[in-house]
Amino acid sequence: MITCPAPLPAKDRILLGHGSGGKLSAELLRDVFLPVFRGKVLARLEDQAVFAIGGERVAFTTDSFVVKPLFFPGGDIGSLAVHGTINDLAMGGAEPLFLSAAFIVEEGFAIAELGRIAASMAAAAEAAGVEIVTGDTKVVEKGKGDGVFINTTGLGRVAAGVNLSAAAARPGDQVLLSGHIGDHGIAILAAREELGIDAPVESDSAALHTLVRDMLRVSGDVRCMRDPTRGGLSSTLNEIAAQSGVGIEVHELAIPVREAVRGACELLGFDPMYVANEGKLVAIVRAESAGAVLGAMRAHPLGRDAAIIGEVTDRHPGMVTMRTAFGTTRIVDMLTGDQLPRIC
Amino acid sequence: MITCPAPLPAKDRILLGHGSGGKLSAELLRDVFLPVFRGKVLARLEDQAVFAIGGERVAFTTDSFVVKPLFFPGGDIGSLAVHGTINDLAMGGAEPLFLSAAFIVEEGFAIAELGRIAASMAAAAEAAGVEIVTGDTKVVEKGKGDGVFINTTGLGRVAAGVNLSAAAARPGDQVLLSGHIGDHGIAILAAREELGIDAPVESDSAALHTLVRDMLRVSGDVRCMRDPTRGGLSSTLNEIAAQSGVGIEVHELAIPVREAVRGACELLGFDPMYVANEGKLVAIVRAESAGAVLGAMRAHPLGRDAAIIGEVTDRHPGMVTMRTAFGTTRIVDMLTGDQLPRIC
Repeated sequence: MITCPAPLPAKDRILLGHGSGGKLSAELLRDVFLPVFRGKVLARLEDQAVFAIGGERVAFTTDSFVVKPLFFPGGDIGSLAVHGTINDLAMGGAEPLFLSAAFIVEEGFAIAELGRIAASMAAAAEAAGVEIVTGDTKVVEKGKGDGVFINTTGLGRVAAGVNLSAAAARPGDQVLLSGHIGDHGIAILAAREELGIDAPVESDSAALHTLVRDMLRVSGDVRCMRDPTRGGLSSTLNEIAAQSGVGIEVHELAIPVREAVRGACELLGFDPMYVANEGKLVAIVRAESAGAVLGAMRAHPLGRDAAIIGEVTDRHPGMVTMRTAFGTTRIVDMLTGDQLPRIC
Repeated sequence: MITCPAPLPAKDRILLGHGSGGKLSAELLRDVFLPVFRGKVLARLEDQAVFAIGGERVAFTTDSFVVKPLFFPGGDIGSLAVHGTINDLAMGGAEPLFLSAAFIVEEGFAIAELGRIAASMAAAAEAAGVEIVTGDTKVVEKGKGDGVFINTTGLGRVAAGVNLSAAAARPGDQVLLSGHIGDHGIAILAAREELGIDAPVESDSAALHTLVRDMLRVSGDVRCMRDPTRGGLSSTLNEIAAQSGVGIEVHELAIPVREAVRGACELLGFDPMYVANEGKLVAIVRAESAGAVLGAMRAHPLGRDAAIIGEVTDRHPGMVTMRTAFGTTRIVDMLTGDQLPRIC
């Protein structure tokens, strides 16, 4: 008699939501990766590792990009891969210096498209003042990949005295946001033609390191910066609340959302708080310096629409709440599941 | 009337051979990537970028791993991803320090297998004395990936006075090889059950940095080191010959090949010179110091079967020739096409 093994329950298999940057991603990190990768640097759970080499503090971060489609309004997988990794360095206050670029290409992919993507990466890197210094290309059989996946890993330098951390938020601090949320996610969705949405929205994909530089220049009171990518603003705020052991209260009316993004979200049943951004940052700043930092943000092209959207509190530690447009208060949880797979 | 675009000719599309580490890979680099990524560091075409940060020389290298199957005799994709990137650092004479790890997982993959792979990475990193400090996980839909792909990017420190380069070989130099060739490629092939080969061969996957350290300790006359992975020994020797503008002559009888590897190659019509290795290195050493370096290699567990396999010559610059077992001489070209896709 042949006995078949019982099929693996769904909870024992990887779901799309494990890549969403929300609750399932956090569980995977907690249950699978952190127990085996026990290094102290990784355990800090910042967007970038920071360690000393010689006399310098070096920041190091990695990201793979699997965005679909490869080309979308406002960018493509190449520029996104450069901006995304620059931003993960910048969120640690690092000056980005060098990037690696590794491609996993599906057999049959057009070489001309690969060239277009490479040219876009090169242009994005040059505009940002970083150099792509090393690379790799692998090819997988047709049907074992999806066009092209790109990994970029970045190296940067952290100036003395800069110590940003998602664990550094303190009650009384102000929560600053650099501009409109949801543009990237909705632009990607609209570019997936099968959805039949026609939202006039471009991805906000951009390199944020000069905005960060200008913010740090006016004040030493920036405690933490994060870019709300996968999982959106709500997931990022939840991470900060959890890692700092504080509550965060935001005001719905203070959060900039474009009309087109709001409209698309209503149509699709999405909440802009969970939609990805690729050119925005959240900063936690001591109240005394919030005005000065906000001024520096608004003086930069990528922070023109910056706003103070809330404050850190000692009530409900680890939780994020929102004062809604109707004057009620609701809990803003991390993303559960995955409403928008493969947006980066 | 609807006009269809003509289908793209095959030569305009990515082939499996573009990932082989042979001629097509070199063409892709030359025609697609180098024209847009014009940085001086990349243009050196070493296995790792080396630049200064503060007072230190830092080595930086990236590799994605798409090996199939994920588990094979002698290792798995996790240990391979750690060893491969450590070795790319070591070939530049760098002491490996930190690694990033980025996963692209296919929806439906068993979480327990991902855990097994992560544990294998952690064990390989710990054994090698390097720390995995940052990571990323993305998920793609079922049928858009193949189990798991892993990118590792590595950082290391290059000691003062160490200047290894594939452009540094000079006529008269000796060619040293650290052991048997072809083990990894044949182990992978045998593990692909559909081939029905039953070769008792384990992958040689190993971290070579302590072997390199011991070699550099005995002599300052090591000019160049390379690990002959994709494309095998022949492709590596061709790269050195081309970049140094020299000829290389090797002696077939001096090149260690295990009986089981030789047998499997005969069966499959492969040449061991083109079969991948993941724990071997080639060193180009000034003749005066070749004996001392060979002694240091043989004293290390990973260099026990090291041998001098040939010499650098000023005849036929850019070409590799082999004196065969029959006393004839033949040209050893780079790998063309791809006999063994996805071996790393």
